[in-house]
Amino acid sequence: MSDPLRLGIAGLGTVGAGVVKIVRQKANLLATRTGRPVEIVAVSARNRDKDRGVSLSAYEWVDDPVALARRDDIDVLVELMGGSDGPAKAATEAALASGKDVVTANKAMLAHHGQKLATLAEENGAALRFEAAVAGGIPVIKALTEGLAGNEVTRVMGVMNGTCNYILTRMESAGLSYREAFEEADDLGYLEADPELDVGGIDAGHKLALLASIAFGTEVAFSGVDLEGIGKVSIDDIRQAADMGYKIKLLGVARMTGRGLEQRMAPCLVPQTSPLGQLDGGTNMVVIEGDMVGQIVLRGAGAGEGPTASAVMGDVMDIARGLRIPTFGKPASALTKAQPATVATPAPYYLRMRLLDKPGALAKVATALGEAGISINRMRQYDHSSDSAPVLIVTHKTTRDALDRALGAMSRTGVLASDPVALRIEQV
Amino acid sequence: MSDPLRLGIAGLGTVGAGVVKIVRQKANLLATRTGRPVEIVAVSARNRDKDRGVSLSAYEWVDDPVALARRDDIDVLVELMGGSDGPAKAATEAALASGKDVVTANKAMLAHHGQKLATLAEENGAALRFEAAVAGGIPVIKALTEGLAGNEVTRVMGVMNGTCNYILTRMESAGLSYREAFEEADDLGYLEADPELDVGGIDAGHKLALLASIAFGTEVAFSGVDLEGIGKVSIDDIRQAADMGYKIKLLGVARMTGRGLEQRMAPCLVPQTSPLGQLDGGTNMVVIEGDMVGQIVLRGAGAGEGPTASAVMGDVMDIARGLRIPTFGKPASALTKAQPATVATPAPYYLRMRLLDKPGALAKVATALGEAGISINRMRQYDHSSDSAPVLIVTHKTTRDALDRALGAMSRTGVLASDPVALRIEQV
Repeated sequence: MSDPLRLGIAGLGTVGAGVVKIVRQKANLLATRTGRPVEIVAVSARNRDKDRGVSLSAYEWVDDPVALARRDDIDVLVELMGGSDGPAKAATEAALASGKDVVTANKAMLAHHGQKLATLAEENGAALRFEAAVAGGIPVIKALTEGLAGNEVTRVMGVMNGTCNYILTRMESAGLSYREAFEEADDLGYLEADPELDVGGIDAGHKLALLASIAFGTEVAFSGVDLEGIGKVSIDDIRQAADMGYKIKLLGVARMTGRGLEQRMAPCLVPQTSPLGQLDGGTNMVVIEGDMVGQIVLRGAGAGEGPTASAVMGDVMDIARGLRIPTFGKPASALTKAQPATVATPAPYYLRMRLLDKPGALAKVATALGEAGISINRMRQYDHSSDSAPVLIVTHKTTRDALDRALGAMSRTGVLASDPVALRIEQV
Repeated sequence: MSDPLRLGIAGLGTVGAGVVKIVRQKANLLATRTGRPVEIVAVSARNRDKDRGVSLSAYEWVDDPVALARRDDIDVLVELMGGSDGPAKAATEAALASGKDVVTANKAMLAHHGQKLATLAEENGAALRFEAAVAGGIPVIKALTEGLAGNEVTRVMGVMNGTCNYILTRMESAGLSYREAFEEADDLGYLEADPELDVGGIDAGHKLALLASIAFGTEVAFSGVDLEGIGKVSIDDIRQAADMGYKIKLLGVARMTGRGLEQRMAPCLVPQTSPLGQLDGGTNMVVIEGDMVGQIVLRGAGAGEGPTASAVMGDVMDIARGLRIPTFGKPASALTKAQPATVATPAPYYLRMRLLDKPGALAKVATALGEAGISINRMRQYDHSSDSAPVLIVTHKTTRDALDRALGAMSRTGVLASDPVALRIEQV
């Protein structure tokens, strides 16, 4: 049996405490599977006195995470503090600069500083691993970086924010308004301190940027993610999408196109019968499409103590076993700077609008679409009692540009009772 | 850039030719991702003259795969010949004995000789990897051995024979009899030369035995798999299961119980709304349940040139990157000999029978169940025109023993028009 792998754990929230529990309770399993003991040497967190449900007395307490990261008696810094900058980044940099490996669950830090940190890791012969940062317990970083490494990835997609999926699922199943479902999620403690991180798509966007980097061999480019939250999705949209055979999901999609790297995180329609359409509640799903493998779907818990700690331990055990691969699957210097795609790949769109009850109203809308070169796949006008009629249109494939021209022309006809809703239908 | 990784490929069927294509076409991607060139040095197959759609002139041709395996100028034997014994096993042993790594897609060989080959590999410091042997392109061996390595696995399940799933799906969607769907699959070339390997559950059973070994740290024990094929599943079962909200799948289930290792490959009912229930056609799915991670579902193509070659290349690239882990996730000497479970975990059962049209018939059946301690969850008697009536019963959880006692008692009542069908309902 080789020398022990010595961990320093910075951040003792739910996940950090979970990791401590596993290392204590599963010493035999970890040693047999990796060929060496895995030990905790020292820990760090903001509040020393908090009860975390696990004894920390066997470990040295270090107030300053940067000092923890620099200790000579640790091999791996496990960074579970969170936050894109501040102590998390400082400790990560300190560890990597001193040649220590880092395992982190910090999607925000990597989305903003991934290229810099990966370069620092490689310069110092250190590993930087982040399975827990994307889709919780699902081993998707490993699948993409290793298992599917022989593929050219053609598209990667994911429902990666359980809170948003919970809200959308509850709107549908319980007929709640967005506001009601949001408040229910808040009461259950599902929302981040800044809810915009969840419902604005930022958290899921961070994750998408990390997946896209590995998938396409490009530098992490969170600023290139086209972000749209779920706040504008109404119960009407959910019901009427269902009526056409679709579900609405906050879906991240990344693909490399002739016009650059496309990264979108936005509410989309997906077929009810697809694996993504069947994903209810807080569960996460990532779909990877490769030129050889076709479509691979991975599904599991996206958050929580156990799943996240499972992912952290997977990375720790890889390090214990001596696995050494570049952070984003290629050496940082070999990652290219991707141009953000200026135009999204054409897709069918779902349009919902209310038309004033005037003769020729529908004709004007149809004409606006036709003149923009957009053909209609399906159209439904619903029964109405007020002075405006709900109309639903599913277009054939079109560009977002053409659609925006058509929407502009429609609004100038004076037959719209309100701004139309336009949602992309992602073909999965 | 390090020295090239030199491959010898034995077996040039669809998958072997696919691997040759990838190594030729993706030289840059392989080198950038692994840090070294990946090259083919020599190849071997039965028929030298066959057109395989790819030029082999750059490689040395070796008639004898064992001679190929022993060549000093190869680092890795890629074994794609198939067959549990014979040349595949001889070449694998020759390669391992001379310290060369082996990548194989050969589930039968590993199911029968996995422990011996893993031991040989470790004695010689060689890696033996087999991602392509289980569930085609889905990186499930990697997920189980590495990504989820910190978990105690509580259950692993899988639909891992695309041909069986195709047959069952076609029976349901097109209303075909088993025989008709079987013949359709045969016409499409989906069946193995010996169809029993598919429809008898043997091929899927091999895969289950490999998963169970990794999941539970036990020596591969294919002989401990309780095998039942799909030949007895009728269109009536499929329809009536659907009527109760279930689908019938050839499902492999492995779990460690207080009574030993349970490994079953048999037609089961699963809820229509579960990921397993929603799996149609030739696609594969593996479900892994761990004490920390909860349930992880992996879905993808289970066969075919691209998906299988993708899995082979994942293993080859791991070796190129220097990854070294024991074949079944723990050193072969640390794997325990599992006792096969003598009794299956209790479960609800689906029973279908025809009762003779006699007063008290149903009461006799219900009494037989009650006397065996089995309670009825749902019962339906269908309309009938003949002199016997179709009856469907879903029981509450019971042991297979109690069920067999009840079935014995029923047959002695003289009210059954034919042998009842009993299928386990797996709770997923």
